Amino acid sequence: MVVPSQMEIAMETIMFNYHKYAGDKGFLTKDDVKIMMDKEYHEFMKNQKDPLTVDKIMKDLDQCRDGRVDFQGYFSLIAGLLIACNDYYVHHMKPKGRKC
Amino acid sequence: MVVPSQMEIAMETIMFNYHKYAGDKGFLTKDDVKIMMDKEYHEFMKNQKDPLTVDKIMKDLDQCRDGRVDFQGYFSLIAGLLIACNDYYVHHMKPKGRKC
Repeated sequence: MVVPSQMEIAMETIMFNYHKYAGDKGFLTKDDVKIMMDKEYHEFMKNQKDPLTVDKIMKDLDQCRDGRVDFQGYFSLIAGLLIACNDYYVHHMKPKGRKC
Repeated sequence: MVVPSQMEIAMETIMFNYHKYAGDKGFLTKDDVKIMMDKEYHEFMKNQKDPLTVDKIMKDLDQCRDGRVDFQGYFSLIAGLLIACNDYYVHHMKPKGRKC
């Protein structure tokens, strides 16, 4: 039996998280995004003062403008959050990273 | 104490994996990418017949054409792998997903 690496487990977690909220319909609605953000990113959402946070996120992710977020849109959200986390980490905990 | 969600743990894993291979220099070289791919994506690399796989990956990720991959380039790699995994999952294990 092949033991998956931590990275493979992490990527599987991110992939199945999408399907957990998308369900059989295969996409995320605004309600799905709100529930997911509240549950999976509770600390981030708790610190958001803007009641339109989820609307703004949806506007960025809903590339077809039909109220649906597909896997690539979902992944844009993960990318945005991860790059913000990394910027914070590099800025506060490491020497400044290299830019192009 | 706040208990992180599975998603937060997964994103942390992906972020720290970059810094594990980038080290103090703050970017990935071709050698770093090769070592990382061999170690973290052993099964994927084992199935690659093309000896130039890492060269091709580097070409895609090295946006500055200076032999260095920064965090956003690294994340493009994760995105590509994750989208390929999801396509496989949707194609083989779920009804076909919606397209725009």
